[in-house]
Amino acid sequence: MFAKRTDLALEARELWQESAQRTSRLSGVKAAKSKLEGYSMTRVDILDDRGEQALGKPRGSYLTIDLTTFWQRRTDFFERAVRAVGGQLKELLPAEGEALVIGLGNSAMTPDAVGPLAADSVLVTRHLIASMPKHFAGFRPVAVFRTGVLGTTGVESAEAVRGLVAELRPALVIAVDALASRRVQRVCATVQLSDTGIIPGSGVGNHRAALNRETLGVPVFAIGVPTVVDAATLAADLLEESGIAEIDEEKLQSGGQNLMVTPRDIDAQVRDLAKVVGYGINWALQDLDIEEMEGLLS
Amino acid sequence: MFAKRTDLALEARELWQESAQRTSRLSGVKAAKSKLEGYSMTRVDILDDRGEQALGKPRGSYLTIDLTTFWQRRTDFFERAVRAVGGQLKELLPAEGEALVIGLGNSAMTPDAVGPLAADSVLVTRHLIASMPKHFAGFRPVAVFRTGVLGTTGVESAEAVRGLVAELRPALVIAVDALASRRVQRVCATVQLSDTGIIPGSGVGNHRAALNRETLGVPVFAIGVPTVVDAATLAADLLEESGIAEIDEEKLQSGGQNLMVTPRDIDAQVRDLAKVVGYGINWALQDLDIEEMEGLLS
Amino acid sequence: MFAKRTDLALEARELWQESAQRTSRLSGVKAAKSKLEGYSMTRVDILDDRGEQALGKPRGSYLTIDLTTFWQRRTDFFERAVRAVGGQLKELLPAEGEALVIGLGNSAMTPDAVGPLAADSVLVTRHLIASMPKHFAGFRPVAVFRTGVLGTTGVESAEAVRGLVAELRPALVIAVDALASRRVQRVCATVQLSDTGIIPGSGVGNHRAALNRETLGVPVFAIGVPTVVDAATLAADLLEESGIAEIDEEKLQSGGQNLMVTPRDIDAQVRDLAKVVGYGINWALQDLDIEEMEGLLS
Amino acid sequence: MFAKRTDLALEARELWQESAQRTSRLSGVKAAKSKLEGYSMTRVDILDDRGEQALGKPRGSYLTIDLTTFWQRRTDFFERAVRAVGGQLKELLPAEGEALVIGLGNSAMTPDAVGPLAADSVLVTRHLIASMPKHFAGFRPVAVFRTGVLGTTGVESAEAVRGLVAELRPALVIAVDALASRRVQRVCATVQLSDTGIIPGSGVGNHRAALNRETLGVPVFAIGVPTVVDAATLAADLLEESGIAEIDEEKLQSGGQNLMVTPRDIDAQVRDLAKVVGYGINWALQDLDIEEMEGLLS
Repeated sequence: MFAKRTDLALEARELWQESAQRTSRLSGVKAAKSKLEGYSMTRVDILDDRGEQALGKPRGSYLTIDLTTFWQRRTDFFERAVRAVGGQLKELLPAEGEALVIGLGNSAMTPDAVGPLAADSVLVTRHLIASMPKHFAGFRPVAVFRTGVLGTTGVESAEAVRGLVAELRPALVIAVDALASRRVQRVCATVQLSDTGIIPGSGVGNHRAALNRETLGVPVFAIGVPTVVDAATLAADLLEESGIAEIDEEKLQSGGQNLMVTPRDIDAQVRDLAKVVGYGINWALQDLDIEEMEGLLS
Repeated sequence: MFAKRTDLALEARELWQESAQRTSRLSGVKAAKSKLEGYSMTRVDILDDRGEQALGKPRGSYLTIDLTTFWQRRTDFFERAVRAVGGQLKELLPAEGEALVIGLGNSAMTPDAVGPLAADSVLVTRHLIASMPKHFAGFRPVAVFRTGVLGTTGVESAEAVRGLVAELRPALVIAVDALASRRVQRVCATVQLSDTGIIPGSGVGNHRAALNRETLGVPVFAIGVPTVVDAATLAADLLEESGIAEIDEEKLQSGGQNLMVTPRDIDAQVRDLAKVVGYGINWALQDLDIEEMEGLLS
Repeated sequence: MFAKRTDLALEARELWQESAQRTSRLSGVKAAKSKLEGYSMTRVDILDDRGEQALGKPRGSYLTIDLTTFWQRRTDFFERAVRAVGGQLKELLPAEGEALVIGLGNSAMTPDAVGPLAADSVLVTRHLIASMPKHFAGFRPVAVFRTGVLGTTGVESAEAVRGLVAELRPALVIAVDALASRRVQRVCATVQLSDTGIIPGSGVGNHRAALNRETLGVPVFAIGVPTVVDAATLAADLLEESGIAEIDEEKLQSGGQNLMVTPRDIDAQVRDLAKVVGYGINWALQDLDIEEMEGLLS
Repeated sequence: MFAKRTDLALEARELWQESAQRTSRLSGVKAAKSKLEGYSMTRVDILDDRGEQALGKPRGSYLTIDLTTFWQRRTDFFERAVRAVGGQLKELLPAEGEALVIGLGNSAMTPDAVGPLAADSVLVTRHLIASMPKHFAGFRPVAVFRTGVLGTTGVESAEAVRGLVAELRPALVIAVDALASRRVQRVCATVQLSDTGIIPGSGVGNHRAALNRETLGVPVFAIGVPTVVDAATLAADLLEESGIAEIDEEKLQSGGQNLMVTPRDIDAQVRDLAKVVGYGINWALQDLDIEEMEGLLS
């Protein structure tokens, strides 16, 4: 059977439900919808082993905020998105201690650049607090690390992060990465927050070692933005909806190519969402309003 | 009826042939296949009005060189590709006179960056010949113009090129642009040369005024590299192959999104092919071997 | 005699006054100082042939706004700088008609990047007004052209601009370029406005054909930001102040090197001042406050 | 007394010798000149405490290769420079074991970009050897780390490197950084190799914690390229040569500016020398000729 590809817990749950074989109830998983600053949010909690196996993801909370209407650019859309993402993140995070923000992905490849771009909007304060403790007394220490790309470093993201965490001993890690969604509607339109850690690079096709509490020794929070749909997954969904049960995967991938589907203006969309994520992190960590962030980052 | 999207004359001919209604012969169009430096080439000549209407393209010659095997990186693959592209281009071009090379597209958006990237590999000699005529006696004068993006210039590519052509009065224009293909196998794997001019930006979704002999007053040669497949076109083909005649275009584009399909490593593929195109232009215009080009461009 | 290098009319006047031989009055030149939004401004008017010969610059008005205190980042420093530059520019410009903004210089070379960087902060409206005339009724049409670098285009900036002006027929041209100052205190700390046109590239060592009303047929306004001091000029001044009349230019330039003096953090300074210039242009051309510009440019 | 600024052991020795007070012999320091691939080389060995105090640098070997004639671009100049730098580096390094190459400095600031640019020319093999041990059996494992800038990471280069070294446990570290020279003739014209480690960022004005065997637990080799002259140092030398003993440092730095002197075409020079350094590292570590490196890096 063709395995549809998604990094969103929300969609893993959808796939489970769609699956023809399952008539039983999905045990070990809770889901709830709500509204947040005018955006909708779905919360999926994976509670136990059964939930983990059903959805193929570690237990924990997964919040998916639907920013589709962000692109309609209604009143305060940017501020509301930052408050929605930042407010939920703040509830997940420990209230104190130094944060290390990890921008995963390849800044030279747009659909994979959410991590490094978001990192550029994060207020970096650790060195300022160290050198001018009185002046920056009100700030929480934040360091940022951009892992770069295996081909140009020779080092797995997880290795580099382990070394840095051992040296800096932060209270928590926040990792930002691009994800793959199953649905084009969710691409560049949703943000998933979780308290479960992350496997770097899963969004654009490489599986590496995990970043989580087990491997790093500190809690790891993940922020993921879907930027691509796997082309074969999209085709499989399309054919199913047209009543064709079996897809010949060979046909789509006949060039031996590994294909992805993205919006045409993905560059602008990724840049805008990365800024929402970066400012959301600032919202969660610092006691600043958005205008103050603008001033400090410019 | 859903109009499948392609910028390749080769594929326009395929679509005509596939069309169920047509049982007649395609008049006004000639096609022929051949081998070139180990790569296959298809030549489509549109001869008259009937050919123009059938394929939706102006009359002239369209050479499509299939570089699929380029990615197998067999012996001399780069040199052979440059000779194949450059040799065919040379046959199309006038033997003498200043050339103006136009890099169309958005350098900040990978699938649209073929033009500006190819421009970076073109030997720019016009100013050198003007200032040191003896030293550069053996070279053909070449100027390069990168049109940039409407949103950051306010000026259509065609307007800017018209102004520059009126000022420089080159003997010929060579315009490089990204195209849309119908087939994923052709994406980042083929180069289309034509002597018919070009409509800038057609590859990534914007139609602008044409660059051709009528609008510029000099012959305009186009080099196009398909870098995307329109997602709806891909889906329509896939569904047809699965026996479904009618595609619900709404379904695919349900997010209101304008979607494209690209290879995952499009950044590397576009960069490599743009270099083939740039060196191919040098091959056609200058009396240099590839090593000499490397030396002059580094 | 060693010729000290400057592109500022203000400094050309200083050099004339310092010159030991001159005891006479400087005829054909008027100068006046004033305050503007908390910044000081010097206005030099070159009135006739004698003034032109004495200062080596064409007749017209040269306003030099001293933004030294910008770097102290006092209250509203950015807004005040934009109002100072934009307000003075507005007084120089015709009240109506399409503007073509030219970003001169090399974006890949920091001290020469003021032009292209300022261009990035200019609101480009020409295409929007053309396609949505009602929606953009309140805006003045603005197009932007970045000339690029001779070595990668083969075309002199003046040629390319002539072609574009002939095609677009704007009412006025505003050209932004990097300049050379004689004084380190003025580097990245002053902005010179003039109504006299400009010779592209003079700031970083290449003299090209002029952009002015004679060559383009429309009024040309120049905005220059000094980003370098010529090292030999700096040394000559230093030696004179130390009582040494004659400088051995050979000594400084012994490596055959063409040297420049810049601030260590020139990247940040050039970026910040380019934004002041770009927003100043918007201030002069559009009826918008700074927050509205931010919104439209983000 | 004004302290002249240099990062070259060669120049520290010159300054000691010029110092009027010293008539004694410089103990604890050995120096020797030689020729290497057509380029001259000076070797300074600091042997003991007296040498360390006299020159203000830790004991060890400092090889300065003078590439001034590189810019004359005589036959094989690039290959000879790579062999000169690479051959000397190879003699300093242990013959076996994984190498971690550190690119220090700010890639967005040209005079500080030698480190990251050189890193881009280093063959990264560690991950390839790990995943395809047979295929890459002949290669030495090499990882690369670009430390980035304190302002955007919050982490000192030395901290980040310590963490990574503890995680990867390489056999040796090679750190590449920009330096300050005292002489304009040496700027972008010399390469200093040493076996003594390095203090990151000393070249462009920030002193941070050292990278050396004491702090990292493995031998640290440094490759430095002078890209700037401190403007006050240059002026002091110039005034002394003109017979003025005391320089008023205030005068030069009157704008409160921290100034540097660089060649006008520093962008091209830094890029070219960084490539020499990167290829030199490959020459020292891998058994490849330059053409093979080109093939693997393109």
